[in-house]
Amino acid sequence: METVKIIETIAGVKEIIKRLKKNGSTIGFVPTMGYFHEGHLELMKRSIKECDETFVSIFVNPMQFGPREDLAAYPRDLRRDVELACGAGVKYIFHPGVKEMYPDGFQTVVKAGPLAYGFCGASRPGHFDGVCTVVAKLFNIITPDFAYFGMKDYQQLVIIEKMASDLNMGVNIVKCPTVREKDGLAMSSRNLYLSPAGRAAATALARGIQKAADRLIEFIYDTRNARGDIISGIIAEYKDDIIKSGFDSLDYFKIADAETLVEFSGPDSLRRADRIFIAAAAFIGKTRLIDNIIVKNPLLN
Amino acid sequence: METVKIIETIAGVKEIIKRLKKNGSTIGFVPTMGYFHEGHLELMKRSIKECDETFVSIFVNPMQFGPREDLAAYPRDLRRDVELACGAGVKYIFHPGVKEMYPDGFQTVVKAGPLAYGFCGASRPGHFDGVCTVVAKLFNIITPDFAYFGMKDYQQLVIIEKMASDLNMGVNIVKCPTVREKDGLAMSSRNLYLSPAGRAAATALARGIQKAADRLIEFIYDTRNARGDIISGIIAEYKDDIIKSGFDSLDYFKIADAETLVEFSGPDSLRRADRIFIAAAAFIGKTRLIDNIIVKNPLLN
Repeated sequence: METVKIIETIAGVKEIIKRLKKNGSTIGFVPTMGYFHEGHLELMKRSIKECDETFVSIFVNPMQFGPREDLAAYPRDLRRDVELACGAGVKYIFHPGVKEMYPDGFQTVVKAGPLAYGFCGASRPGHFDGVCTVVAKLFNIITPDFAYFGMKDYQQLVIIEKMASDLNMGVNIVKCPTVREKDGLAMSSRNLYLSPAGRAAATALARGIQKAADRLIEFIYDTRNARGDIISGIIAEYKDDIIKSGFDSLDYFKIADAETLVEFSGPDSLRRADRIFIAAAAFIGKTRLIDNIIVKNPLLN
Repeated sequence: METVKIIETIAGVKEIIKRLKKNGSTIGFVPTMGYFHEGHLELMKRSIKECDETFVSIFVNPMQFGPREDLAAYPRDLRRDVELACGAGVKYIFHPGVKEMYPDGFQTVVKAGPLAYGFCGASRPGHFDGVCTVVAKLFNIITPDFAYFGMKDYQQLVIIEKMASDLNMGVNIVKCPTVREKDGLAMSSRNLYLSPAGRAAATALARGIQKAADRLIEFIYDTRNARGDIISGIIAEYKDDIIKSGFDSLDYFKIADAETLVEFSGPDSLRRADRIFIAAAAFIGKTRLIDNIIVKNPLLN
């Protein structure tokens, strides 16, 4: 078995990167908060396949958690993560402490723009600024050619892609499909929080999104249908469905343009969109789960 | 005479940088808004002396100007700048257009922290966010080993130094002394705005700061003197002096710790500071001039 190198300091990573770049190696990067599931491992495998060297970071970033969120409870198991990453073929894990990443006096923030205003950004103020700041730091430390992100956190992905492009970071953002359990539930470290009953209920999140997608496609095809309330109808039905299935509350369910994340004002803007983003966040007890799907507009694709 | 290469696109710069880095060259960088004076040329000469290759950027950054500030009036003369830079030995000038730096949909902001709250930051809301954002972009485009900044914009300098360190940019920030006219006026592209009478009055800015510095040093030495109002006394006197000399109004005159930019609460904190930052901003008509001095604490240095 190959051994994996766990690096805890920024200087340590920079030294290795310098050496690898001298050899002309391309660097792939998978930033994570650890507690790996198949979704993480897919990102790692893809990076290993596409790049000469792959770095995985494991850092539960305090800056992206709100004061009432689950920072302390967020699952951590470095030993298990190292084994899983090693099994996937990873050779370098960056695992810094909080003080290494945010020393005393730290104060500069990378602030996301309008892409962060809705969806999870509306429910979690400051969350995406925390994400952008830590990802900017990690990009600057690791200077990857490619960075791999899962579509499950789609809003995060488009915000990071925008940041990398706005700030000329020279990192290619690679979008990787959401990995799902057999019953359709999107893999997430937070699924661990669920009771058996909650776990059974959770499948309604993805099922409802798929149903909404099917209804939207049908509506788009039926171009004689100009009903303005199609979206509000789908949203009301979705909410009903997931509450009946055992969710305690819906945070949001929204249908928007997949590029701009702007919600549709009516059937016309919906039919003109190239790709449609259907996303939901909902609570089972204190556990907040999210999921989404991107639908290509059948009239345009 | 050596020729200077003027590059207008980000892709163009990145291509050259890639080639230079392959040769193992160290890159020096001097970001400017153009309309060069001796201060700019000193930065360039120092970079040329210390680095294998030097890039100068000329970009009047709209994002760091407030809606009522002098963006449109800011002096520009590319031809003269190119001649002066060339004369100083510069080979690469990056001169992008506004759309190249801020394409439609641009939205990510690098936000400075508490270092930006006082002094010019208080008078110019958002100014330092604009500075940080453009400098972050320029650093990512040029990936310099060393970047040269003048001490005349001292608050800007410490904010950028903090940004580079907070975000792990790997750029060494080099502080270069303020270059002054023979009568002491700090060189600035904005001195151009002054009428002959204004130009004569302007010397009071630097003269008063030096006088304040002398009085502070005297006070620090005289350790039996515990008068709490020393700083407010100096400030009142400074304001009087510059208004009498022909300034129309004082924006600020402050005395603070040179590292944290926190103002002193009294004689004790003053005597404990390693270096003292004395800074002023004042108006002659619409022209806002700034100046500062850093005083080493004679008890500690």
